[in-house]
Parts: sequence; C-alpha cells; structure tokens
Amino acid sequence: MKSNRPLILISNDDGYHAPGIKKLVDIVRPLADVLVVAPESARSGYSCAFSATDYLRLKPRHNMGDTTVWSCTGTPVDCVKIAIDQFCKERKPDLILGGINHGDNSSVNNHYSGTMGVAKEGCLKGIPSIAFSSCFYNEDANLEPLRPYVEQIVSKVLKEGLPKGICLNVNFPATESFQGVKVCRMTRGSWISEIVKEHHPRGYDYFWVVGKYRNDEPQAEDSDQWALNHGYVAITPTTIDVTAYNFMDTVRGWDIK
Amino acid sequence: MKSNRPLILISNDDGYHAPGIKKLVDIVRPLADVLVVAPESARSGYSCAFSATDYLRLKPRHNMGDTTVWSCTGTPVDCVKIAIDQFCKERKPDLILGGINHGDNSSVNNHYSGTMGVAKEGCLKGIPSIAFSSCFYNEDANLEPLRPYVEQIVSKVLKEGLPKGICLNVNFPATESFQGVKVCRMTRGSWISEIVKEHHPRGYDYFWVVGKYRNDEPQAEDSDQWALNHGYVAITPTTIDVTAYNFMDTVRGWDIK
Repeated sequence: MKSNRPLILISNDDGYHAPGIKKLVDIVRPLADVLVVAPESARSGYSCAFSATDYLRLKPRHNMGDTTVWSCTGTPVDCVKIAIDQFCKERKPDLILGGINHGDNSSVNNHYSGTMGVAKEGCLKGIPSIAFSSCFYNEDANLEPLRPYVEQIVSKVLKEGLPKGICLNVNFPATESFQGVKVCRMTRGSWISEIVKEHHPRGYDYFWVVGKYRNDEPQAEDSDQWALNHGYVAITPTTIDVTAYNFMDTVRGWDIK
Repeated sequence: MKSNRPLILISNDDGYHAPGIKKLVDIVRPLADVLVVAPESARSGYSCAFSATDYLRLKPRHNMGDTTVWSCTGTPVDCVKIAIDQFCKERKPDLILGGINHGDNSSVNNHYSGTMGVAKEGCLKGIPSIAFSSCFYNEDANLEPLRPYVEQIVSKVLKEGLPKGICLNVNFPATESFQGVKVCRMTRGSWISEIVKEHHPRGYDYFWVVGKYRNDEPQAEDSDQWALNHGYVAITPTTIDVTAYNFMDTVRGWDIK
C-alpha cells in the first residue's frame, strides 16, 4: 500500500463478515487505499469498550481487491488500536470509518454503539473519523442507495479534515430513497422495558437485555431522530470533550471542602 | 427497604467484591437505603457497553448491614439496567453511584471507563448519577480520606439533584491528603504505545492492550489532570448530549446532496 492515495482504516461492530462493512469497502476503494481490521464476531453495543484483561488475536480473512480484511478477537475500539499499532507504523490513516452498521446509531445509541466506538477512538487518536449506520436492521437490506452520500461525505472529509475532537455520526433512514441531508443534534430519548426474564430448564432465572426506544422529543425538527423519521440522512457532529461547561459554576457554588 | 430515606443504587466496574465498592457502601449507608448490583468479575474499560447477545444472571452474594450485594454476569451498564428493572419497580433510585473505582477516570478515560458507564446509564435513565474514582490503582490503598468529600457531594446531590443529562465524574488524586476541590473540564490527552505483542508457546502471536497516558495540555490549570497532579479532588461535570454544536454550520455548508 505505498501509493499517493489517502489511506482509510475501516472497522465496525457487526464483524468482518457483515454485508455493511463489505459495502463500505466497495464504496470507498475508488477513493483511497483501504485497510480493514474488524471484530471476529458481532460486537454490537460495545461502546468505547477495550480489552483491559483479555488478549487479542489477529487473522487475515479474505481479500477485496488489494485490501486484506483482518479479523481481531477484541472490541471495535481494540480493532482501531491494534490496526494503527501493527499496520500503520510508517503511514498513519488519513481517515477512519466505522460501519456501515446494520441498525440505528442516532440519539442515545451514540453512547452504546460500537460503530461510534470506532469513530470516537479514531478521533481520540487525532484522526478524522466517521461512523455510518443504516436504520435497516436486516443484513440483507439494499445499501446501494447510500453510495453517493458516503462518497460525498468521505471525499469532503478527506479534502478538508475535521476539527480535533470532533467526529461524525451519520445515520441513514430505513428507506431506499432519501429526502436529502440534515445536520442534526442528538435526540433526547430513552430505552425502556429493557429486561426480559426467562427460566432455564435447569431451574434458575436468566435475563436478556432488549428494550424499546422512546423518543422524548418527537417534534424536535433539529434532532437526528426527526430527520430519520422523515426520510433524511442525519449527520450528527459528535464531540469528544464531554465536559458540561454550563454546570461548572453551579458545582463551584456547592463549596465542597 | 421501605423507609423515608432516599434510595441509592451502587455499581462499579471492578466487581462486587472490590474494596472500593465496599468503602462506598460504607460511606453512604448512613445517608440512605442502599442497593448494590455490581459485575461478577472485573469489567474495567467496558465504557457504556451492554450485553446485546449474552444472557445475564443475578446472584445474591453477601450482606452489608441491611444491604444485599448482588452480582450480575454482565457489564456495568447491564447492572444498572437489571437493578432498576428487577429491584426498583416500586421505588426508583434517587441517586446512582459508580465506584469507588481503583484507578484514574479523568481526561479521555471518561470514554473508556465502566465506572462512568454506570453514571452515564443512570443519567440516561433520568436519575442523578455520580462516578467516584481514586487514582490509586492498588486495591489495598487507604480510601478513608475520601469519606468527607463523598459524604458532602452525595448529600448535596441528594438534596439538590442534577440537571437532566448531566452527571459527575469525581476523581481523587493518589494521596491521602487533598489540597481541596477543583471543578474542571476534561483534559485533552491520548493513550500511546498501547499494544504489546507476545509469542505463544504454540507458535502464534497474540497481543495485550496496555499503554501510557500522555497529557496533551499539562499546563492547563482548568483541566482535571492538572487538578489531580496538584493534589486536588477533581469534579468534571459530564454531559450526555455529545452534539458538537459549534461544527454544525460548517457541515451544513458542505451541501451534501
């Protein structure tokens, strides 16, 4: 991969074999050299988790043109860390992409998403980073309509970069025909009814984490959920600095000694 | 637990057996009824991860006075979800606490920390939430000097609450005598040299994720790392809304179609 083209590192949380990551590689290969390091198995909901106690292994899996797809036994964040350490010593990626995720990462899913974990880790490493997600949960869904949007966003960021500490969370509504693009803020929402209790045949209870998403501001036209519910591609710029600046003076007033 | 006292839910990422969580229970029991649901084993670095594909189990482990300590096989976030669903149907917690973590959760660790995962999950559920962490990594460290600060902060938040969407990240420096309290912003920093390659006796390579923290702004007196490095207790108010508002107009100007 010694070329004059930019280098893009791609990972995801659905695993190296997911149709979404293959589609993303297919879309960006004309624009850049591409390196893929993605989880060996599905790691949905892994957020910014990394493997503090488990060892990692790396395996070459298959080729897409001149791109070798590697699997890593760890989390999405681990994939970014090991890819940069093991494959990018001489040439740092110009851009890091997560996705295309099979499922919605807007609203509070920004916090839980392993796809956003990829983008945040890239951003923490000072590299422009974008997460792409489709609200189609079905892995057989047609993601081809995303192509021109992904191409334009990737080209723009390759050309202009992103400010330090800011990455993009891009979500596509569950449709094959989009109304356009909206730049949004994160929707306030909640997961409810999250735990389902089951009884094991051996006599004990166990639990699944599932849940329903509740939009707490469905009328907010500047929110990413509103954009998605109305057929728009939602771009939610996301900050690494999570300081609540507007509450600092109140806490100072508490005068804890 | 039917009393007029407030109810505090406590979890952590070091596991239900860690000295830090026992110390936290001990400190707050005079102030409230306490419920503990914490990971069965250490879950450091689990961020806001939840178990999307693994089932959970719950087990009562031991009692601290009238508080039953439960373990959960899942992540710190799972612990909050299952505790609220299974134990808080009639009475929602008034406050959710993570910790006391054995290790520093300031700066970018805010994103990786399972202790902050507890606080963020509580905040996502609309409940005032605080993470407490000590920069002593040694589990034998004396955490008794934290007591008056934890008491004051917990009492203040029980009385006044926190704004929706804001939780507190409280870190204590690795000393037994504090200079006071500083309300801080998150320090810009990075983890570097994160991957160590080893060779397995069976002939393959494997990798550990470790690393060194690099402070990218060591002179910034308003940052949480500066406070900790100068002996102050650091309170970093943390926001759930991670929208990068100041970059939205730039992205709108890209005019993606």
